[in-house]
Formats: sequence, structure tokens, C-alpha cells
Amino acid sequence: MAELEELELGYDIPARVGMSEEEVFTPALVLDLDALERNISKMGNFVRAHGLRHRVHGKMHKSVDVAKLQIELGGAAGVCCQKVSEAEAFVRGGISDVLISNQVRDPRMIERLARLPKLGATVSVCIDDLRNVSELSAAAESAGTELQAFVEIDCGAGRCGVSSAQDAVEIAQAIEIADGLSFVGIQAYQGAMQHLETFDERKSAAEAAHGIVRRVLDALRNAGLDPNLVTGGGTGSFQFESASGLYGELQCGSYAFMDADYGRLLNEDGERLDEGSWENALFVLSSVMSTARRGQAVVDAGLKAMSMESGLPLVATKEGLTYVEASDEHGTISDLDNVLSATDKVRLVPGHCDPTCNLHDWYVGVRNGVVECLWPVTARGKVF
Amino acid sequence: MAELEELELGYDIPARVGMSEEEVFTPALVLDLDALERNISKMGNFVRAHGLRHRVHGKMHKSVDVAKLQIELGGAAGVCCQKVSEAEAFVRGGISDVLISNQVRDPRMIERLARLPKLGATVSVCIDDLRNVSELSAAAESAGTELQAFVEIDCGAGRCGVSSAQDAVEIAQAIEIADGLSFVGIQAYQGAMQHLETFDERKSAAEAAHGIVRRVLDALRNAGLDPNLVTGGGTGSFQFESASGLYGELQCGSYAFMDADYGRLLNEDGERLDEGSWENALFVLSSVMSTARRGQAVVDAGLKAMSMESGLPLVATKEGLTYVEASDEHGTISDLDNVLSATDKVRLVPGHCDPTCNLHDWYVGVRNGVVECLWPVTARGKVF
Repeated sequence: MAELEELELGYDIPARVGMSEEEVFTPALVLDLDALERNISKMGNFVRAHGLRHRVHGKMHKSVDVAKLQIELGGAAGVCCQKVSEAEAFVRGGISDVLISNQVRDPRMIERLARLPKLGATVSVCIDDLRNVSELSAAAESAGTELQAFVEIDCGAGRCGVSSAQDAVEIAQAIEIADGLSFVGIQAYQGAMQHLETFDERKSAAEAAHGIVRRVLDALRNAGLDPNLVTGGGTGSFQFESASGLYGELQCGSYAFMDADYGRLLNEDGERLDEGSWENALFVLSSVMSTARRGQAVVDAGLKAMSMESGLPLVATKEGLTYVEASDEHGTISDLDNVLSATDKVRLVPGHCDPTCNLHDWYVGVRNGVVECLWPVTARGKVF
Repeated sequence: MAELEELELGYDIPARVGMSEEEVFTPALVLDLDALERNISKMGNFVRAHGLRHRVHGKMHKSVDVAKLQIELGGAAGVCCQKVSEAEAFVRGGISDVLISNQVRDPRMIERLARLPKLGATVSVCIDDLRNVSELSAAAESAGTELQAFVEIDCGAGRCGVSSAQDAVEIAQAIEIADGLSFVGIQAYQGAMQHLETFDERKSAAEAAHGIVRRVLDALRNAGLDPNLVTGGGTGSFQFESASGLYGELQCGSYAFMDADYGRLLNEDGERLDEGSWENALFVLSSVMSTARRGQAVVDAGLKAMSMESGLPLVATKEGLTYVEASDEHGTISDLDNVLSATDKVRLVPGHCDPTCNLHDWYVGVRNGVVECLWPVTARGKVF
């Protein structure tokens, strides 16, 4: 049994540093480190040039290592995430400024949230219900900590967030006088507009959103409050938030990895924006399992390796190959010239990066065809 | 820091035995144990009454505990799964008969597969390429083990599997004379027909599939081979496989948990089948996070808690609630009467059980509103 144990040392990791990409166990998340670094640097240059803070969205990659690269190379100020358990993973990994860009309502999760600043981080949260102010305040007081609080407003997505300036003022006033909470400003993220098809549609939705932000800011200031920071914006809209003059902080996530869905939307816009388009840095590496049927190859990456709700992945490896059908553990690739053989590796660009990353335990970082690093998906599955 | 550590003992589990369902951390996979046991017993009665073996599909639940219940209560003969790393998890968990109903082509995974019988299990695999016979044979010989081999045929799904009887005969003959391999029969699973909309469409696709199976069996027997076992069938088709007289073994998976997609298909068929329909035993328990907008509630279960490629989940908790939109960590529920409040629990029936289970680390087993067990999703993320 000794030899079995020896082999098993590497059973749960897809690669070792120094391997060639061809040797990586599949399916696996592969990061093209050159492309990743270029995307991160480009966004860093953008936010610096526009005098903005960038709180990168960690819900996309769930990785402490990627977040640190965004901070070091891209000048990011910190991380956003959506759940308390994610925030815990980032704070424990050494990220010292974490915003939960979401509501926290379960009393036990509020307690966990309120304890988190004890680990040395600035911790912020969003509120869209007056009752939540007293819940958070009591927990912070009891833990002896302070939480930074944003009032979340609905600026057109119709999901969370208050929809009247009056409600925003009421919650901000409550935060202002609550022990253990500090009023920072407003969270104004229009998630629904990120994926509108054309540049003009997104621009118009952004202008509508920013009109709402402006009215809420006016109402807060008229009530004697100081909304110091407006935070929001995503990969599909950050130029508009930047141009609005309203936002002090962006929350882009997908720009670092990109995916097929954002690629379809944003590459068309490339010429209209100074920044041009983003590179695909994230791939799902797959292997051919079966070529029993002429004109197609079946790869080992299906619904358990990629989230398909935003469409099928694109094949990046070779021209003329199309991923045409997904099942749980299989992907069927149309290969009319029969160029693929069993065990051949195929790089796929997933339809939607966030839920795809959340399926895997590891990122395999590759440069010039060689594995340079193996990074855990630190907060994978941290949904509480 | 002592109190923090104390609290953190339960950080990564959604529940403890004895809790009420209301106390479970969300989003979480909840199993209604009564419904689960009834589904398992019903399928057990079916296979016994029809003199069939049932090799339950473990790729659906990825749980050693559920597999053991299927064996003990439902008389299952063993488990199928799709990947070597899944098979390792089941064998290590004590399942002694495991079929990888799929091709294994990576030489290192073939080596792992060939070592697996050393742990005391009967291990079977599917082959659709002559070259794979010698690869598997060499690995089994080198490991000093024996692998049971099925020839996989394409009976209409157009995915893996040989599409001519001649190819099947050629591979079976090669298996027959290969050291370390034992020819068992054929794998004939028509995945594409499982989800055809009407009973009549599925029946007609099944008849076409069984025509292919019959021709391959005849060809094998004419070549002097003994295809002892035909294995295949799923929740959407097992009655047809049973009625065909060709299959000795079924591979149903989803019947145990069910999901919204199969529910739509199979409940219409209930009256046409002696078995009636299956109960929903799997739920994603979610909590309301925001009711800032009148007429809707936002819950904490989105794309990272449920796979949505087969449609949105159904709300099981109350009439009149509809899950209308998903984002990564949010689900928007239309609640025209505003019956939901923050922290209210909502049971959702996911669109597709297999990739939904693969998102989570734990099953919370509930009976009469109380948590009775906490089962790991043993093979979650085991995609190699």
C-alpha cells in the first residue's frame, strides 16, 4: 500500500509547479498569468488616472492570491465580496479592507461579521432596511468593534437597495447615531445593466442610475449627512461611473479574468473606449475523452466544470472547433476536420467566470506553457 | 481570541444534528429524509419486481451516505460514477462495486483506476476506442488487478460510444484476450432521451436505442462473445429499458432526489406509469435578505447555490411565490402579497439536481422539521 499512498499525495491537486500545461489534470481552471497581469495593470492605470479607489470584486475569483496581485500590481484598495464567510476568508488571508456589498440578516452571521474587525481589517457592509441598522449596531457594540456602513440604493436593477431618497436618508440618519456603526456613503451598483447588449444601452442605463445616485446624494446632504463615498460599478459600466464624477470607488471583478459573455459584449465596444477590450486570462483546460463519432470530439468538461447559464464556452485552442453541447461531465466539440485525438488538451473560455470559478478548488497559473503557481480558490463554496 | 475560536468550530458546516430546519445556515442543501426513503424504496421495489440489478448513479449525489442508503434500503447492487476521482471516493467510503460509466484516457488516471481494485472493490469501466483496451490492460497488469470492461455503444445520444456493431465486436474481442481485463457486456445509455418532453417521444427514442442494443448483442453473440450484462437507463427511461428485456442493470440517479426539470417531464407521465411520480426530496434552503422593493423578496441563493442551466428553481414553501430571476448570490422571488420578511426561510426545488449538489459541501438531512444528519458531499468537485 506504500506506493498507493505515495501516488495519492497529489490526488487532489490538478498540477505541480514546473509541469507543462499539457500535463495538468483536467478539467482545471488555468490562468494565463501574462494576460491576467496585463488586465490588472490596465485597470490599475485607469483608476489611478481617474483618481478613483478600486475595491476589486472578490466574489468573482474567490482567491486571496488574485486579490493580492490586484492590490500589489493594480493598486486596488481592498476587496468586495457578497457573504460573511467569503469576507472571513479574505480577512484571514491578509486583505485588510473588505466590503460585503450585500445585506447580512441572519443574527449569527451578523455576529460573525461584527467579530471580523478584531482580526485587523476594516469591514464594511450594505444596509437597505432600517431594522438592520439596530441589528448590526448591537452586534458591533457587543463585539467591541466598528463596522463601516453603506446605504444600498436600487439604481435600476430592481434587486436589493432602497428605492426612495427618503428611505436612504432615514437609514443613513439611523446609522449616524448608532453605536458601533460608521456611515460611509452609498452603495450604488446596477448589476442588471452590466450585461445589456450595446454600449448605448449600457450608457443610457448608467445615466439613469447616476440620476438616482445624484438625487440621493442631494437628499443626504440636505439632511446634513456626509456621504463621503459612492461605491459601485462593474466591468460593463465602470467608464460611465468614472465619467459621472459621482463615484469615489469602483467594484470591477470580471475584467481580470474575462469570460465569453462579457467578451461578446465588450469587444464590440473596444473602439469606443480608450481602454480597448480585456484579454481572456481564465480558461477551463479540458481533455478529449472520445472521438468515436466522426466530426466530433467529446471533452471531459461539462456542467460540473463550467457554469453554462450564460451560454456555452468558446474553444480557444484552435480555429474551427465549436463547443456545441454540454452534459454533466461531457462537452461535445464539433471537429469537422477530425483534428482532435484522445487526451488532446483543449482550452475553453467559460460563458460566465464567477460561478465557474466557484466550481473548482484550484487555479493553475501558467506562463509560457509552464505551471508557475497553484492557487487555492480560497472562498470556494463559502455561500453563508 | 478564545471565543472566536469556539464559534469557529462550526463555521464550515450549515447545521448541527438536533437543530430545527429554521436554524440551518443558508443557502444549504436540505434532504427531506422521508421523501428520500420513499423514493429509494419505490425504486428498490421496481427493480426487485423486474428481476434487475440497480447500479445507482452516484454522479448525481456524490455522497457515500446516500449510496449506502440506496444499497441498504433500495437493494442497489453498487454505484456508477463518471470520473476516477469520484470512484476513489466511493470505494474508500466502502462501496464495493463501482462502474465508471465513462471513458478514462489520461495515462495517470488509468493508473489510478487500475490500482483501485486493490482497495477491495470490483471496478468497471467503459471503452469506445480499441487503443484504450491496451492502455487499460497494461495498467491493470502492471498493478496486478483486474478491471471489468463494458463496450460503450452510442444508442442515439451522439456523444461517446461506438456507433457500429462491428466496432463493438472488435473492441469486445480485444478485451476478451487482453490481460487484466474482463469483458462484461455493453454500456447503452441514451442520455439525450432522458429529457425529451413527452412520454411518447421518450418511448420512441428508447425503442430506437433498444433496436441498436439488440443488433449489437446479436453481432457479439454471432462472434462467439458472451455479453453477459447490458447496463444503462435513467430516471426518464428506466421503464422502457426494463420492458425491453435487454437490460440486466439500471443506472438511475435523479429519481432519489428529483428536480424541477424532471418534475415537469415525469409528473405528466405519472398516470401512464405504474410507479407514478417521484417526490422532491432535495431542496435548496434559502433565506430572505431584502424586501426593500414591494412585491418581491430577495433570497440568498443564486447561481452559486443552484445550477440554473435547466431553468430556474421552483418555490416549495408557499403558494403564490415564484423565483423570477437569479444572479450570482441573489434570487429574486415575486411575492405580490408581501408575505415574506427578512430571514424567512424559503425551500427551493433546483432546476437540475446533479450540478446543484456539486456546488455544496454538505447535505442537511431533515425529518419532521429537525436536522437528523449531516452528510458530506463526498465527491464534490472530484472532476478528474
